[in-house]
Amino acid sequence: MTPTSEPQDMNPSEDDAAVLDSYKRAAIIGGGVIGVSWAGLFLARGIDVVINDPRTDIEDLVRAGLAEITPTLAALGLPAENLTDRLTFEADLATAVADADVIQENGPERLELKQQIWQTVEQAAPAHALLATSTSTIPATAIATAMRQPERLIVGHPFNPPHLVPLVEVVPGESTSEATVRQAKAFYTALGKRPQVLRKEIPGFVANRLQSALFRECVFLVAQGVVTEQELDDIVTSSIGMRWAVAGPFRTFHLGGGPGGLPHFLEHLGRTMEASMWPALGNPSFDDATVALLTDQAREAFGTGTVDELATARDRAQIALMHALNETPQPSSAHHP
Amino acid sequence: MTPTSEPQDMNPSEDDAAVLDSYKRAAIIGGGVIGVSWAGLFLARGIDVVINDPRTDIEDLVRAGLAEITPTLAALGLPAENLTDRLTFEADLATAVADADVIQENGPERLELKQQIWQTVEQAAPAHALLATSTSTIPATAIATAMRQPERLIVGHPFNPPHLVPLVEVVPGESTSEATVRQAKAFYTALGKRPQVLRKEIPGFVANRLQSALFRECVFLVAQGVVTEQELDDIVTSSIGMRWAVAGPFRTFHLGGGPGGLPHFLEHLGRTMEASMWPALGNPSFDDATVALLTDQAREAFGTGTVDELATARDRAQIALMHALNETPQPSSAHHP
Repeated sequence: MTPTSEPQDMNPSEDDAAVLDSYKRAAIIGGGVIGVSWAGLFLARGIDVVINDPRTDIEDLVRAGLAEITPTLAALGLPAENLTDRLTFEADLATAVADADVIQENGPERLELKQQIWQTVEQAAPAHALLATSTSTIPATAIATAMRQPERLIVGHPFNPPHLVPLVEVVPGESTSEATVRQAKAFYTALGKRPQVLRKEIPGFVANRLQSALFRECVFLVAQGVVTEQELDDIVTSSIGMRWAVAGPFRTFHLGGGPGGLPHFLEHLGRTMEASMWPALGNPSFDDATVALLTDQAREAFGTGTVDELATARDRAQIALMHALNETPQPSSAHHP
Repeated sequence: MTPTSEPQDMNPSEDDAAVLDSYKRAAIIGGGVIGVSWAGLFLARGIDVVINDPRTDIEDLVRAGLAEITPTLAALGLPAENLTDRLTFEADLATAVADADVIQENGPERLELKQQIWQTVEQAAPAHALLATSTSTIPATAIATAMRQPERLIVGHPFNPPHLVPLVEVVPGESTSEATVRQAKAFYTALGKRPQVLRKEIPGFVANRLQSALFRECVFLVAQGVVTEQELDDIVTSSIGMRWAVAGPFRTFHLGGGPGGLPHFLEHLGRTMEASMWPALGNPSFDDATVALLTDQAREAFGTGTVDELATARDRAQIALMHALNETPQPSSAHHP
């Protein structure tokens, strides 16, 4: 039995505060949606932020983005006033990272570009700095082949948006040192995130692979006319979604398999699932007809509200859910180490 | 823009109350876990329940089961006192259903047995009664081939346990009448459930297919050593799980694809997902080595607590989540018709 689950630590422990004390300044490379989200979280946690991004209008973009997420940071219980007082911009990469305790890179998903960025960073950044890339598709091993200190680079892949969703997938490359893994895990934990260190590099990491596996069947069921998008979304929120917010898939089957738990489930229903359900799952394609159908149904399902309006409402509900789970301790596998 | 989402209606509307008024008495066929859960919900909603089950110790089993779920019914805000005052048992099937307004069948998943049961029921039950089977695997069409009034039978497949999780998949067979579909939907809605009518029969219906699709990749990732069961569960609860409790997979991508929403997502990331992610998803097997690995990790992940203790803690968190979402209105596709 492990300690109480907390989906997001809104108030870091004393240990976490001590860790945060050693991070005075962060360099955020790439001021897009992910970069801005990280910047907001870092600033709210008391870390000065410098943004490095070649775009000439980057200051306006980042300030607008920060203004948009500030209410969410406040709703999470974080100090969210005057965040931009400690925000600066530096177009020269080496200068931007020269004084940083952590560098979080959110550049385009192009291997050569990331290799160039990290070659520059490792030479210019302080020796103690944490070097993390937000990449969702490129393994640290591939980026680090171009580095002199490949042991320093690690993937810190957030589930979007990082200021709200707790998960950070921490994925060491083949050369990443244990010290770097520990440093990354401690840092993200201190930020209030729920870092999870993967044991192997695998394309898509874990959360996106799972999301993709479920979505394949979603597309199939809608393309087959079994349900509409809206009906499928309703099915998920009122069953598996609310279950998996509280207990993951293994725990859910452990608790649904009678007194014998997961071992009993595996021996009986697991093999039935393999024999009768898995082969029947769909293999759809985003051909023109399917894309047209899904696009039409999206109009029907999501109405005329802008994406921003809908996302704001969703995130409000998300935060209420996170608070509710924080306030309802349960024995769980979910815990900080 | 559709009305406010309510994950579970704890207080039925006046319309729902009027519907419930016409259901005085329910016959539950099969007093296993699902039957007991339905019985508890029906009783708490003011419907008298008669249990039909051939087992000689069925009274003790059902009373023990009801005692176990009563705290959950109370936590959901339902009147849960003296439930068993209106509970009876009748071993003869025809007698059990003779005076019932709704028959909910939860027998073993064997086609011939269900065909026999429903042949008896349709002859003995009142003409106005709703005839619903909880089957998760057998289409109504197959059961109804043995019925004289196949238009009356419908699948009302709950997501386990029905007294707690809102979803009921309502699946008409080829001969099921529109009137029966409307009757089933109105009844489950009045109970406070979130019924979803499927447009086609398909093996496994929707929720279990989706669950199975995700679980296949879960088993693969653990078998490959990318993460442990516990780590995978933590990843899900802290990312996709909490997302899908609030917004389904289509809405989640609609809100994560920038201002262009789902249409933009489909054109760009959707096709990338199809080309690079779907072919890379795993195809694991519950061979002996995998079952042994998963069983060992289950011991590690779930500790020494009994399944009942863990389920109770999980359900408490589940109810807190449901209350939180009820209290946080958002524009959603999720609504009662």
